[in-house]
Amino acid sequence: MIISIIGTGAVGGYYGAKLANVGFNVHFLLRSDYLVVKNSGITVDSPKGNLICSHVNAYVDINDMPKTDLVIIAVKTTENVNLFPKLTSICHKNTIVLLLQNGLTVENDLKISLPNNLIIGGLCFLCAEKIAPGKIAHFDYGAIKFAPLLHGCNLKEISEQLALIGSLFDKAGIQTQIVNNLAKARWEKLVWNIPFNGLSVILRSTTQQLLSHTESNLLIRAIMTEVVNAAQSLHIPLNQSLIDTQIHATQQMIDYSPSMKVDFERKKVMELEQIYLKPLAAANDNGFNMPLVTMLAQQLAFIEHHNLTR
Amino acid sequence: MIISIIGTGAVGGYYGAKLANVGFNVHFLLRSDYLVVKNSGITVDSPKGNLICSHVNAYVDINDMPKTDLVIIAVKTTENVNLFPKLTSICHKNTIVLLLQNGLTVENDLKISLPNNLIIGGLCFLCAEKIAPGKIAHFDYGAIKFAPLLHGCNLKEISEQLALIGSLFDKAGIQTQIVNNLAKARWEKLVWNIPFNGLSVILRSTTQQLLSHTESNLLIRAIMTEVVNAAQSLHIPLNQSLIDTQIHATQQMIDYSPSMKVDFERKKVMELEQIYLKPLAAANDNGFNMPLVTMLAQQLAFIEHHNLTR
Repeated sequence: MIISIIGTGAVGGYYGAKLANVGFNVHFLLRSDYLVVKNSGITVDSPKGNLICSHVNAYVDINDMPKTDLVIIAVKTTENVNLFPKLTSICHKNTIVLLLQNGLTVENDLKISLPNNLIIGGLCFLCAEKIAPGKIAHFDYGAIKFAPLLHGCNLKEISEQLALIGSLFDKAGIQTQIVNNLAKARWEKLVWNIPFNGLSVILRSTTQQLLSHTESNLLIRAIMTEVVNAAQSLHIPLNQSLIDTQIHATQQMIDYSPSMKVDFERKKVMELEQIYLKPLAAANDNGFNMPLVTMLAQQLAFIEHHNLTR
Repeated sequence: MIISIIGTGAVGGYYGAKLANVGFNVHFLLRSDYLVVKNSGITVDSPKGNLICSHVNAYVDINDMPKTDLVIIAVKTTENVNLFPKLTSICHKNTIVLLLQNGLTVENDLKISLPNNLIIGGLCFLCAEKIAPGKIAHFDYGAIKFAPLLHGCNLKEISEQLALIGSLFDKAGIQTQIVNNLAKARWEKLVWNIPFNGLSVILRSTTQQLLSHTESNLLIRAIMTEVVNAAQSLHIPLNQSLIDTQIHATQQMIDYSPSMKVDFERKKVMELEQIYLKPLAAANDNGFNMPLVTMLAQQLAFIEHHNLTR
């Protein structure tokens, strides 16, 4: 069984190294880090034990990669538009594609390029950061929710494939859970991503700083409430209690800079489209206004413009 | 006629120097800049002509100042609570007090300390900054709207006093205008102050940067609309057309950092109470929600907390 990791940042590097470490045949697509990783491999520093993958199957061109049974996409969503059409070169008809990305309806976007493959949305609960080429710092968590894109099939028909993927990750020491409502899983994650990613950039802060100040704590809750209400307006069965659950879980988490803050600090493009514009458009098309999230998105667009041009 | 300037920052320094420059008997209260100003005076650098007041009546203690006919208050509103009770020492029964401050209902707060004096709200349209002790950089504008606090009297009964104050400023080359609706004048100014002061801090930007980016321009208009709607809910007769007028006037203005941005950069307390919390409370007491202004205020409270403690 051949596994390809497309994008070897914090997410791809962490899960790829975990899978390679237990003996799976893993191939990594890289860009700027290619030479370092080809020569020195990938290391994961983690409080739960360090990993070193010294010999890595590294590629800089997707066309050089082998036909693959499981493709794990872990690039930033800002690269999807260029990447998705190229995936056919490594896929056969039974290839399963796991999308470890932020956003909304990314699976549907991918379906256009790979209409006949099983596509699984993967929602990672992972605190990690790429601190140097091939060097991942893992801080906390790592579980993944698998939410397959069900187009004319049900969970039973794909149970074999899901069990197979689950067993791979299980072997690698990664907790997984299968959920049947992809849209619900995506919106659940947005309830966290929308306030924490955006405010960490706008207020130059970490999760614990945001939670520990009364005003920003109230603001996070107000934004979360708006996202839950937007989801409910789209008949996504989210419950308001999710807000307390997520706040509580984040309080228990290590103090953390969300990925958008890291992108901002490195003057990279931020995932505004997937985390803000798509949910806003979905709600708006349904006649539901999101004034706070709109304001966040406008502030972030301004910040990104100046961050990339300065 | 004795004039006292309470607070010799950009506003007090500019207007005080203009009045002293044409021969009025002006006395300045200072704090940290006292020694520099006592020794070297006040200078105003302006594209409309520089001013030098070499010999300044400078004081560091309000109790040393003479009884005054016109008191001009130009400290930051954050100092009001300490200042207002001390003003009686320089006021007689005919003293007129002109409040050149931001905010809402500041005149009413002052009325508690000086119940029998004529109090005039002064709304300055001035682009200036104190760049060093006793050194004011004037960039643009300078006109003042006089809006008297009418408690049981009408404009006619105080017409003599208003004419007197107007003639002083006229002599000093400062345009003035008398308006009869203080609350309307205050809310009009808030329509500008609320978006531009807050966003210039949160987005680390100037007026022209905020206006020239599509998303921040839209956000400014959305916030202005919310403020106009809040004022209307309080039966303040503001018109939506004010928004275009203010945006257009700001586009014509020099590129500028509003006073809150200057305070932020100098790690000083920002005027959150007067510019955000008071308008929010007034609207809220009336059952009118301001989600965008609430979010601005929450973001600013977070930023201020970290700015003052870092």
